[in-house]
Amino acid sequence: MEEKKANDIFKEFKEHSIAEFFKKNKQMLGYAGLVRSLVTVVHEYITNSIDACEEADILPDISVKLIQAGDNRYRVIVSDNGPGIPKKFVGRALATILAGTKFHRYIQQRGQQGIGASGCTLFSQVTTGKPIHVESRTANGESYSCNVSIDTLHNKPIVTDLNGTDRTTNGLTVDAEFAEVKYENSDHGVYEYIRRTALANPHVQILFTDPEGKEYRFVRAVDSMPTRPKPTKPHPLGLSINDLLEFAHKSDSRKVSSFLMENFARVSQGKVEELRDIVEDMLDKDPGRLEWGDAEQLLNAIKKLKWMAPDPSVISAIGEEHIKLALKNILNPDFMHVVERKAALFYGGIPFVVEAAIAYGGAAGKKIEEDIYEGNVLRFANRVPLLFDSGSCAITVAAKSTQWKRYGIDMESQPVSVFVNVSSVYIPYSGVGKEAIAQEDEIIDEIKLALMEAARGVQRYIRGKQQLGLETSKYRTIERYAKQLAKDVSTLTGTDGSEVEKKLETLISKHYPRASEGHSEEDDGDAEGSTGAAVSTATKEE
Amino acid sequence: MEEKKANDIFKEFKEHSIAEFFKKNKQMLGYAGLVRSLVTVVHEYITNSIDACEEADILPDISVKLIQAGDNRYRVIVSDNGPGIPKKFVGRALATILAGTKFHRYIQQRGQQGIGASGCTLFSQVTTGKPIHVESRTANGESYSCNVSIDTLHNKPIVTDLNGTDRTTNGLTVDAEFAEVKYENSDHGVYEYIRRTALANPHVQILFTDPEGKEYRFVRAVDSMPTRPKPTKPHPLGLSINDLLEFAHKSDSRKVSSFLMENFARVSQGKVEELRDIVEDMLDKDPGRLEWGDAEQLLNAIKKLKWMAPDPSVISAIGEEHIKLALKNILNPDFMHVVERKAALFYGGIPFVVEAAIAYGGAAGKKIEEDIYEGNVLRFANRVPLLFDSGSCAITVAAKSTQWKRYGIDMESQPVSVFVNVSSVYIPYSGVGKEAIAQEDEIIDEIKLALMEAARGVQRYIRGKQQLGLETSKYRTIERYAKQLAKDVSTLTGTDGSEVEKKLETLISKHYPRASEGHSEEDDGDAEGSTGAAVSTATKEE
Repeated sequence: MEEKKANDIFKEFKEHSIAEFFKKNKQMLGYAGLVRSLVTVVHEYITNSIDACEEADILPDISVKLIQAGDNRYRVIVSDNGPGIPKKFVGRALATILAGTKFHRYIQQRGQQGIGASGCTLFSQVTTGKPIHVESRTANGESYSCNVSIDTLHNKPIVTDLNGTDRTTNGLTVDAEFAEVKYENSDHGVYEYIRRTALANPHVQILFTDPEGKEYRFVRAVDSMPTRPKPTKPHPLGLSINDLLEFAHKSDSRKVSSFLMENFARVSQGKVEELRDIVEDMLDKDPGRLEWGDAEQLLNAIKKLKWMAPDPSVISAIGEEHIKLALKNILNPDFMHVVERKAALFYGGIPFVVEAAIAYGGAAGKKIEEDIYEGNVLRFANRVPLLFDSGSCAITVAAKSTQWKRYGIDMESQPVSVFVNVSSVYIPYSGVGKEAIAQEDEIIDEIKLALMEAARGVQRYIRGKQQLGLETSKYRTIERYAKQLAKDVSTLTGTDGSEVEKKLETLISKHYPRASEGHSEEDDGDAEGSTGAAVSTATKEE
Repeated sequence: MEEKKANDIFKEFKEHSIAEFFKKNKQMLGYAGLVRSLVTVVHEYITNSIDACEEADILPDISVKLIQAGDNRYRVIVSDNGPGIPKKFVGRALATILAGTKFHRYIQQRGQQGIGASGCTLFSQVTTGKPIHVESRTANGESYSCNVSIDTLHNKPIVTDLNGTDRTTNGLTVDAEFAEVKYENSDHGVYEYIRRTALANPHVQILFTDPEGKEYRFVRAVDSMPTRPKPTKPHPLGLSINDLLEFAHKSDSRKVSSFLMENFARVSQGKVEELRDIVEDMLDKDPGRLEWGDAEQLLNAIKKLKWMAPDPSVISAIGEEHIKLALKNILNPDFMHVVERKAALFYGGIPFVVEAAIAYGGAAGKKIEEDIYEGNVLRFANRVPLLFDSGSCAITVAAKSTQWKRYGIDMESQPVSVFVNVSSVYIPYSGVGKEAIAQEDEIIDEIKLALMEAARGVQRYIRGKQQLGLETSKYRTIERYAKQLAKDVSTLTGTDGSEVEKKLETLISKHYPRASEGHSEEDDGDAEGSTGAAVSTATKEE
């Protein structure tokens, strides 16, 4: 073969749209495997609905309906009571990859990429050839329906059949068909995804209709909105040199001093004066003219100062009380312990909060067969359940490194659920499919600490339960002997056997008071009784 | 809080470039962790160099040099003897994400996305503020140097300082600086990445200069180019309805019948006639006017026919002989067994080939300390080493499910390396960072079969070795007794002790012939002796 020249090779040079890329690599968006692909669709729509409702300060009421439309083919209809999408944005919001209201804002949200919903449109269209159908009404009374698909070559929306409707309630309904998907009632299926969403979002109400028409109603456990996370400015300690420089070049401020105070959290006049002692000449410069070396000096100076930590109110965690209510509502465990850690930082300055809970008994853990259980780990990021890629997730790494047995917990045989939610303005997902949190040391450490604390919390309860189990078995053995003994004494002495038996039983009961009563001692401290005011869990309504 | 209206929310609506996306989510490209980030850089440059050389039919000669430039800061200089980049493409090739010669072509290559090299430019610029420096010469004598960076807001290249040079050899040199990286001589470091590259690419020569100035020369083990994979047309069984429709709408053919023959592999006039029996009316239609339903019908008809499998020559596997030479060159094992499977299909029609090898002894496995070893799995996709995300990779899943002990292999204590290379026109990576092959059942099954066959191949050798170990230890014990016995006999009878000892030894040696000679029996069949013409492994040259 003759040597091929660069010019020949580069005849093939082309640029591609991000939509073309994900069309070819849809597994990277979570469209890999029939069951997972369907979960990905439901996940994207629910996530968007909850984010929209919360942004508009509306208690979310969501309906998810699956209708089988052929072999490995389903219609997915998701409807919410949110603010809706203004007509002129509907195409770009649902059919342009990397477009949206979330990517560039510095506020905690479930979605953060501007990929999810458009990814669904793409997946629907490449598996069925159909556009998705949308109906929406916004608060100004604009009410319409239309079909939406993507021109993948240019990553641009195609909106057709746009009509006015007489819809009277605000919100958004998406009705889309997908092939290469499958409904399965498993640990990795849609039902489980929705159940876990309810678990981490006690203020959300979801009505799920499965492909057989069975309805599952996840009733909200709390009637108040979660505290809305504040939009925030980046903390100076979380900046890279490049970030600082980009902010500076976009700034309208006349001087670096005012630029710093206007753009970043915790930069006060006092802090600026402290900085002046280190990099005096820098602070009166025009931020638009800062160069890399300047920004580097400035950042080094920033790192030398002591800063107030980022304002924790930029993070909306679920909160101990709400987690307890949600666990009662959904798992109704015999016992649980909930831990909420204080805000910590990763990447130097990005705040995050870890919450962890361990629930024992009830519907906790995974039932293998009658009376045989396994523990399970329920992973969440900004309240969104993570069902896949557990191996590469910071939560899994932390859970695996926890020495459960030291706390009397056996993840292989007990009905235990370990719940972990990581909340942050920016979750460092390991992939575009957002199913695993990258293994940052600071995040893993915080999760470990939360899990250890939660494990200590349930330790006494579980030890008590184990002790009780032991005593009960001793009590039963002795009780059996006592019956035989009573009979023998009666035969030998001619006294009344039942009298002897009663006396013996009283004697034994004194020794094993808890076992003979058949229930545990009152829980102490943070223990939650098993008979709390648990709202009934999802109920079938056929 | 007052209810926020959709119009307020959508004021924040924006579109973003793919470069902005990866700037914010660089962990998704493999830039996560100091050590891994440096490997990612080296990986992208080496991959591009080898692909370019092979495309131009040049035996690759690559130099990789690392120079420490500060705390967690390195200069990376990669130079090749490839075809170079024409001046007018240099910006787009190295500083536009999703641009290149690879994404849209249906030919087996290491790179397949058009992201890698531009990702490096992005990472260099956000961690150091510097452009990358490029020097190139192409076969028509065009020789230049320039600096390249990305306008991330628009995903467009910025080329500056473009000058002619007097470079006399064709090829490309990239000289770039990176911060937030670290050199480490570990299983996940640059040295190991290059060693594994040499292992799967015996025709490639690499000179690696580590940050201390030590040179490691990986000499090529074979002097011929691998068979160049043929560019191919897609096989009709690998098409989705959407693919078929997109091809049809782009086609210039007048009729569906000629469209099928021109665009897809294995579609002959005979096959078209067979299709005519099922969907007669379809074949004379204008392909530009096919609708989803037509394409669906057509594809259903296609699936009913028997088709010749895809031409295996579209895949360039390493080949048994070359794997043996490479393993000898780099690991110099005592024994190895290499398996090359026939082409199989995933996604219905995309061909792939699995090669597997097991090497025992020499530099195989991982040395924990003196005489203590562990087995390791060396994963490759199209000859590119995969060092990270092993947990989610099809190769790991297959290796874990192999019952090694049934074959006498103990991955926990033996010096064993398990080598797996998956070759395909399209490798379904699980993420943009391309460190793991998605867990497609067909791929996992093929790997399992290859590993079982390789394991059977080394089984006899390892059993023999274990047997020999046992006999040697018996032989030594009896030998000790024999010496004592000879002395005792000599004392008792007054005969010459050494005479008695010699006779006893002859007797014992007859019983344990192999152990007494201190080496194994001649290997049979596919066994490779330990004294082959192994070229010496990478040598330090200080």
